[in-house]
Amino acid sequence: MHGISRKDRRAVLVAGGSGFIGSHLADRLLQRTDLDCLVVVDNLWTGSPQNLAHLNDPRLSLEIGDAEVFTTSQRFDEIIHLASPASPCWYMSDPARTIRANVGGAFNLLGLLKPGGRFCFSSTSEVYGDPQISPQPESYRGSVDCTGPRSSYDESKRCTEALLFETQRTQGLDVRVVRLFNVYGPRTRIDDGRAISNFISQALTTGVLTVYGDGLQSRSWGYVDDIVDGLERFFWRDNISHRGPLNIGNNCEVSVLDIAKFVCSLVPGSSIVHHEPVPQDPTNRCPDLRLAKRILPGWEAATDYQEGIRRTFEWFRSQIATPAAATA
Amino acid sequence: MHGISRKDRRAVLVAGGSGFIGSHLADRLLQRTDLDCLVVVDNLWTGSPQNLAHLNDPRLSLEIGDAEVFTTSQRFDEIIHLASPASPCWYMSDPARTIRANVGGAFNLLGLLKPGGRFCFSSTSEVYGDPQISPQPESYRGSVDCTGPRSSYDESKRCTEALLFETQRTQGLDVRVVRLFNVYGPRTRIDDGRAISNFISQALTTGVLTVYGDGLQSRSWGYVDDIVDGLERFFWRDNISHRGPLNIGNNCEVSVLDIAKFVCSLVPGSSIVHHEPVPQDPTNRCPDLRLAKRILPGWEAATDYQEGIRRTFEWFRSQIATPAAATA
Repeated sequence: MHGISRKDRRAVLVAGGSGFIGSHLADRLLQRTDLDCLVVVDNLWTGSPQNLAHLNDPRLSLEIGDAEVFTTSQRFDEIIHLASPASPCWYMSDPARTIRANVGGAFNLLGLLKPGGRFCFSSTSEVYGDPQISPQPESYRGSVDCTGPRSSYDESKRCTEALLFETQRTQGLDVRVVRLFNVYGPRTRIDDGRAISNFISQALTTGVLTVYGDGLQSRSWGYVDDIVDGLERFFWRDNISHRGPLNIGNNCEVSVLDIAKFVCSLVPGSSIVHHEPVPQDPTNRCPDLRLAKRILPGWEAATDYQEGIRRTFEWFRSQIATPAAATA
Repeated sequence: MHGISRKDRRAVLVAGGSGFIGSHLADRLLQRTDLDCLVVVDNLWTGSPQNLAHLNDPRLSLEIGDAEVFTTSQRFDEIIHLASPASPCWYMSDPARTIRANVGGAFNLLGLLKPGGRFCFSSTSEVYGDPQISPQPESYRGSVDCTGPRSSYDESKRCTEALLFETQRTQGLDVRVVRLFNVYGPRTRIDDGRAISNFISQALTTGVLTVYGDGLQSRSWGYVDDIVDGLERFFWRDNISHRGPLNIGNNCEVSVLDIAKFVCSLVPGSSIVHHEPVPQDPTNRCPDLRLAKRILPGWEAATDYQEGIRRTFEWFRSQIATPAAATA
């Protein structure tokens, strides 16, 4: 296959690979000519087999199961651990399971790595909590309430980072950890619960968009193609000097209210209502991307929010128009 | 037994109960007339059966094993989870095992709790990292590098707090979490590696005390009897309104160098040498005890460092004079 011998081809496992981001990453992994096989492990808690249904490649297999207990005699050259819910309403509904997926998942998957293999992990901007500085560089230690209602997600990501970087320090593990800022786009669950998907679903159904609090809390909204492009560049490079976590996101900060207004503009007659603020909703979040620009030359999150939302809107409309897909 | 019927007597499990703090707590648990049985689970990584050897009580049993995999058909009214190394040189030597003990230990032990039972956990002032405010109240979110060399301990304590408080939020778990500041006293391992035990061992052997850095980093030094008195008051009370973590420690801040000088004063001819500072050694650490004073009326860490160190010194001297005990 393009001159790559069988022994140089790689066995890759993606935990959470039928989720929103995972399935986009699977698309790109299957374009690699050095890929020997791709095993997706997913318990379908927030992922869906629909997200992989368009793929017809004999190298791909989907194993339904929890990342923290999945077993196989196979060992992998690269493991990409994305197994976790990422939306507050999902992880807050089962915090113990969220911690198990992240921390327990990392422990279990490390055991499936070939000696010298690479372990990639999607951490989160939530490790910065409600940040006291903006934008947030990777060196910022964060402001997370480890007893709060978002802590299962935030702290299990932090603890998994600790496990991986300490395994790097003590055993030389080849680690790649990204801290993803808000990501949106096609294949977000319709009931995901985060701002952009909520607004689009609401605009397409009730016509009434719910903004929690005054909506002035800001986020950096990363369109999924841009974000997964960053993952591809960081996860697949063999020679990389950077040993720490890497922010990946869009650094154009836009308020939740402005997003709602833009979605409203796509559906004449739709309107905005304000509800009580969500507990411990961060007031701002914006990646410092200086390190990412240096480590991943040429990469940028170029899709502006208007363009990204338009594309996402079209995808949601097609899903809602197809009842079977919408309820899948 | 003092009018307490069999059915009102309690089955208690202490994970890490043959360690330094755990064994002092076991002493006090066995003074409870409502105690039906006390199961100590300990893998003897940093604990020692010697610490329980003086106890001759049919209610006590020691099970050698890891907190994260220990199984029994028995269920417990109270579980006290202390299973973790607490000294940097120990937890940094096996970070994955440290995370497993704390987080995995909590998951496994929660499964051994009777419905309505109480789960007590010893967290740490390390959740505050290198604090930017002093003293540290429980509401301070901390400054921890989740990728640093101390992160296995700091982050696994934070993540375990998250698991417990989220289980409280979602399932009403009766939780007691303390954040212990530096503790010292008899039954510290001679090779523990922390300041007071190091200084005393060195004074009694080589006569040369090693101070890392300039020694101006400060700590609040809690004598073990005072600290365990605080645990007893917080862990054993049935009616308590406080639902969050509680700082337990001595709030008299003393520099490492002053501690070294005091130990020197106990052994004529001993001296101090300075070595390179330890990476990410916190510059200061002092508990805000206002909440503890309110929740635990009458409790205070009354033993001053001179008195506490004198008692610890005498215990170390007796251990070093007994070769069998010193090498146990």
